[in-house]
Amino acid sequence: MNSINASSQINETEQPGTQMYQLIEELYPICRSITGNGFRESLRIVEQYIPLETHEVLTGTAVFDWMVPREWNIRDAFVKNSRGERVIDFQANNLHILNYSVPIHRTMSLAELKPHLYSLPEQPNLIPYRTSYYKENWGFCVSHHVLQQLEEDTYEVCIDSTLQPGSLTYGEYLVPGNTTDEVLISCHSCHPSLCNDNLSGMALATFLARHVQTQPRRYSYRFLFIPGTIGAITWLAMHESQIQHIKHGLVVACVGDPGISSYKKSRRGDAEIDRAVLHILQHSDQPYNVYDFSPYGYDERQYCSPGFNLPVGSLTRTPHGRYPEYHTSADNLDLVQPIYLSDSFAKYVAVVDILEHNRTYINTNPKCEPQLGKRGLYGTMGGQKDTKTHEMALLWVLNLSDGDHALLDIAERSGLAFSIINTAADALRQSGLLQECSR
Amino acid sequence: MNSINASSQINETEQPGTQMYQLIEELYPICRSITGNGFRESLRIVEQYIPLETHEVLTGTAVFDWMVPREWNIRDAFVKNSRGERVIDFQANNLHILNYSVPIHRTMSLAELKPHLYSLPEQPNLIPYRTSYYKENWGFCVSHHVLQQLEEDTYEVCIDSTLQPGSLTYGEYLVPGNTTDEVLISCHSCHPSLCNDNLSGMALATFLARHVQTQPRRYSYRFLFIPGTIGAITWLAMHESQIQHIKHGLVVACVGDPGISSYKKSRRGDAEIDRAVLHILQHSDQPYNVYDFSPYGYDERQYCSPGFNLPVGSLTRTPHGRYPEYHTSADNLDLVQPIYLSDSFAKYVAVVDILEHNRTYINTNPKCEPQLGKRGLYGTMGGQKDTKTHEMALLWVLNLSDGDHALLDIAERSGLAFSIINTAADALRQSGLLQECSR
Amino acid sequence: MNSINASSQINETEQPGTQMYQLIEELYPICRSITGNGFRESLRIVEQYIPLETHEVLTGTAVFDWMVPREWNIRDAFVKNSRGERVIDFQANNLHILNYSVPIHRTMSLAELKPHLYSLPEQPNLIPYRTSYYKENWGFCVSHHVLQQLEEDTYEVCIDSTLQPGSLTYGEYLVPGNTTDEVLISCHSCHPSLCNDNLSGMALATFLARHVQTQPRRYSYRFLFIPGTIGAITWLAMHESQIQHIKHGLVVACVGDPGISSYKKSRRGDAEIDRAVLHILQHSDQPYNVYDFSPYGYDERQYCSPGFNLPVGSLTRTPHGRYPEYHTSADNLDLVQPIYLSDSFAKYVAVVDILEHNRTYINTNPKCEPQLGKRGLYGTMGGQKDTKTHEMALLWVLNLSDGDHALLDIAERSGLAFSIINTAADALRQSGLLQECSR
Repeated sequence: MNSINASSQINETEQPGTQMYQLIEELYPICRSITGNGFRESLRIVEQYIPLETHEVLTGTAVFDWMVPREWNIRDAFVKNSRGERVIDFQANNLHILNYSVPIHRTMSLAELKPHLYSLPEQPNLIPYRTSYYKENWGFCVSHHVLQQLEEDTYEVCIDSTLQPGSLTYGEYLVPGNTTDEVLISCHSCHPSLCNDNLSGMALATFLARHVQTQPRRYSYRFLFIPGTIGAITWLAMHESQIQHIKHGLVVACVGDPGISSYKKSRRGDAEIDRAVLHILQHSDQPYNVYDFSPYGYDERQYCSPGFNLPVGSLTRTPHGRYPEYHTSADNLDLVQPIYLSDSFAKYVAVVDILEHNRTYINTNPKCEPQLGKRGLYGTMGGQKDTKTHEMALLWVLNLSDGDHALLDIAERSGLAFSIINTAADALRQSGLLQECSR
Repeated sequence: MNSINASSQINETEQPGTQMYQLIEELYPICRSITGNGFRESLRIVEQYIPLETHEVLTGTAVFDWMVPREWNIRDAFVKNSRGERVIDFQANNLHILNYSVPIHRTMSLAELKPHLYSLPEQPNLIPYRTSYYKENWGFCVSHHVLQQLEEDTYEVCIDSTLQPGSLTYGEYLVPGNTTDEVLISCHSCHPSLCNDNLSGMALATFLARHVQTQPRRYSYRFLFIPGTIGAITWLAMHESQIQHIKHGLVVACVGDPGISSYKKSRRGDAEIDRAVLHILQHSDQPYNVYDFSPYGYDERQYCSPGFNLPVGSLTRTPHGRYPEYHTSADNLDLVQPIYLSDSFAKYVAVVDILEHNRTYINTNPKCEPQLGKRGLYGTMGGQKDTKTHEMALLWVLNLSDGDHALLDIAERSGLAFSIINTAADALRQSGLLQECSR
Repeated sequence: MNSINASSQINETEQPGTQMYQLIEELYPICRSITGNGFRESLRIVEQYIPLETHEVLTGTAVFDWMVPREWNIRDAFVKNSRGERVIDFQANNLHILNYSVPIHRTMSLAELKPHLYSLPEQPNLIPYRTSYYKENWGFCVSHHVLQQLEEDTYEVCIDSTLQPGSLTYGEYLVPGNTTDEVLISCHSCHPSLCNDNLSGMALATFLARHVQTQPRRYSYRFLFIPGTIGAITWLAMHESQIQHIKHGLVVACVGDPGISSYKKSRRGDAEIDRAVLHILQHSDQPYNVYDFSPYGYDERQYCSPGFNLPVGSLTRTPHGRYPEYHTSADNLDLVQPIYLSDSFAKYVAVVDILEHNRTYINTNPKCEPQLGKRGLYGTMGGQKDTKTHEMALLWVLNLSDGDHALLDIAERSGLAFSIINTAADALRQSGLLQECSR
């Protein structure tokens, strides 16, 4: 925990894990997709925690190179054998349906059915998660064991879905701050019953919003609950004039699994958000991974496209595709746990604390050191072997506050935690030895 | 093999090794020096492969701080003992003569002779290669074993050479391209019977010229077959106004031995040629060495002198002076082998491919990703765990084609081979998603 | 030894160790503080070696954020037990007194006395060194063994000191050079009987001043013997208009102990002084440590405060606080030894040699290499396997003397010692191949 007000936040950061988990439990049974009622129902649940605004964008709306697709809804789906038994049943697990399957209702042989069945031969107990948003198709996802047990038979195949003009839905919550400069927190909210990817992200974003709305803040915080890819594209297309306000951003995903924290840098690679997250991870006393930006992953792909190149990274635990439960039925309520959600939350809070407090000061007494003792800032006994961390922080802040170094620069160069540097800066500012630099 | 058209080139790169070796065999017996008929005869052999222009520069011509020296020719040389036996015989190996020896014909004691004999005590079976271009001298090079067996006797010493006003000869072949921007390929061609240094370089340059003349090309390629040092100085002095056209260059030498590939960077250190060669070596799946520029070596010394500072490096196998056969009679037809010549050739071809295709593009759809699926560029099934290398290359090229990144930059940052990046760029350009940047 | 005139300096650098040690012996018994007669007496001893100017700055003079304190002097101090025995005696070791103790003379119980006694429980045989310059206090420093043996008794406590308006004293010696550009050599001279910290620094500065005054020099050298912190602040405050002349500087301290050499970089981190010292250490064939600047340590804190940011580092052996004898009675005449003083001195001399000779030249024959052979600068026999270091140095200097590289740059890039590069540059300049660049 490197945050500024550790005592008040520990309570918050311990509870959020449990609370976030409860929210995940509420959201888990719903069959979400990039459009449709499952997405809307999910937003209504989040609205019970934060005052989300829900937006609807009509099918066919042009969004850059794309078009908002038809809306998909599904009531039921099954494959019945000739004895009338549901051998594949959407009611049992919504992953069973190829997401965005077009409606179908007819009988067919196993040979006809098989090309529409998806399984994971190397993980034979798990149901895969598959989608076909942009090519009309229908299909079922099943465990390989079930697939292998299907006998020659005549099957009744029913997908009671609709794919019709409608709208794409997204949720947005702007927490205004003292300035119009924004921090963007974006989570894809389109996956069906998959907990880590990305109910964990939705839950963390929800509770981070609750946190920042209670804190004094210079930044405005924009929380987006959007369908992956098409949602980010839609939002960006409809808010081009506002994008300049985004100064920092994080894509929140996969924050509840037991893996170590991982940070994928923004395309810029050395943006303030990149350095803030790295600082928190470096001072976390935990192992962590850092990855350079690559144009594959979540919605940072869109935020970091060359026409925007926004300083948006992604702080996760195990990244997408790197844990065996990824995009399978094993990404369930057992995989994510409150303790990991709490830990991820605490790191997001600490990052926000850095962004909020990373100011640049000018030492008002730049020629030689000021006399800290007479201001009560410093020990009075000379000659001792050790100097304390706080005193070192005071000296570092004074030495580097020349208008060219923000507090995060000073933390990095000194090797001290940002929170310690910030505390020292507070003390010096109160003594009149620092003035904020209005650059 | 990282070249663009691998299938067509594998045939070319397998044959050249054998063909290059045959050319080396033809050139091997000739006694070359920095001037004279041996050099001319060698160029006439190369002319059978490529349309070389031969130039003669008169003795006494001032070339920067130097002067074209008198021309040296030799017909015969020997040391006979009192029984009339040739104990040292130029006819047996032209390394026996101190290159540029002035004529002499008289008898002398062993004591008189000995200061004019050069051997390698630590490699007692090998004849060293020695020259005395700029200080009049005469001498013989012998194996240390032969030297030690010479008895007290009266020896007839004969060097039937001439050192007279004449000219310095060099060969040049300009393969014009779509632009006047040039790639310089330079090989010193003045060494007598030494295969790796530098008949291998002459052979590689010859066959690289044959290769590029058959390829579409934006660059013009200038191949120089010159005497070392004085030849490069002479060429530079006589072509000062054209030097600005040289955009990339390589000094070709020592490309036929079994050692791993080595690259000596240009004085600039980060020129495009340096990065192109490093990329090929990094993706070669072979070990390799890289050396920073130093002002000792081959003609890169002249091309990289501070008044020119051309982007010229040197791609060799074992560098000069680092293999035991270097500048001895063991640098013979056994040391160089077709397989190593082929491998070196393939790397030069791959470097040329990078230079030719390293263009900078602008993503015409820079805001968010374009929809690759509707253009048939991309898989249509979402949610799968892996994305393929080609798809990653498409995404990298789109993401970084902002006008600031050429394809080699993108290859370096993505970790993908240039050839894969170039293929992706071709596909995107054909889809209208990329436009070449005219910077 | 990387200096230019090694033969003449070896004599000097062997003797200085012994001579420096003798100076340390003379200075050791004196009780110094940041003001007072002990400091003055010490300067009078140094004046026997170099023509030091002594300056007095009156108590109460404002110096930036500070004020020159009252002057402290002490004649005697003791704690007597009821039997009249001096159980703590300033006459035995001047570390026994808390430096800057106010006068006191009265009897008290052990309980009253104890809060005024300072010891080192983990080093029970050693007397600590403590000061209280800026908070009125009195006290005694004793070994922990002595402290533990003190019985319940009535003690006579006497500190016969004065703390009165007077002045702060410092010594200064400017050795003028051909230019007004200055090298600053600063040593704190305020510590009482502590040899390494910093009688060793005072001795090295003294003998370095004797050295430079006998050498041709382009720089002026300013040697400061000042009380720590307040002395540097006072000097800087009174010489603000001259500070611009300081081009390089070193704080000299802890140069006599057996530890390896250590360099603490200036705040800039890549100043010429930083690179010069690193070069000497890298070529010393000895282990060494390098530390980045931090705002704790000696007077580099003041010289590197953001309002000045002078290129001042500190070349020591074991740095402050990192050896067990630091600020204790064990920092005595046994800890420092002539051999280490000599070695430190030699390194300072070598650094000065770099600063003096680190000029930038232009190759007057920049296009291709000049013909070194005809100028007698180079071997005449071509084809040999090795080239000698001197010849490499000639080639490096010619290749990089383009106006952008000073000799230290060339030494760094070539990997050759500065002295070798400088010798080559001398030879080339004498041949007319180099001209000094007047940048």
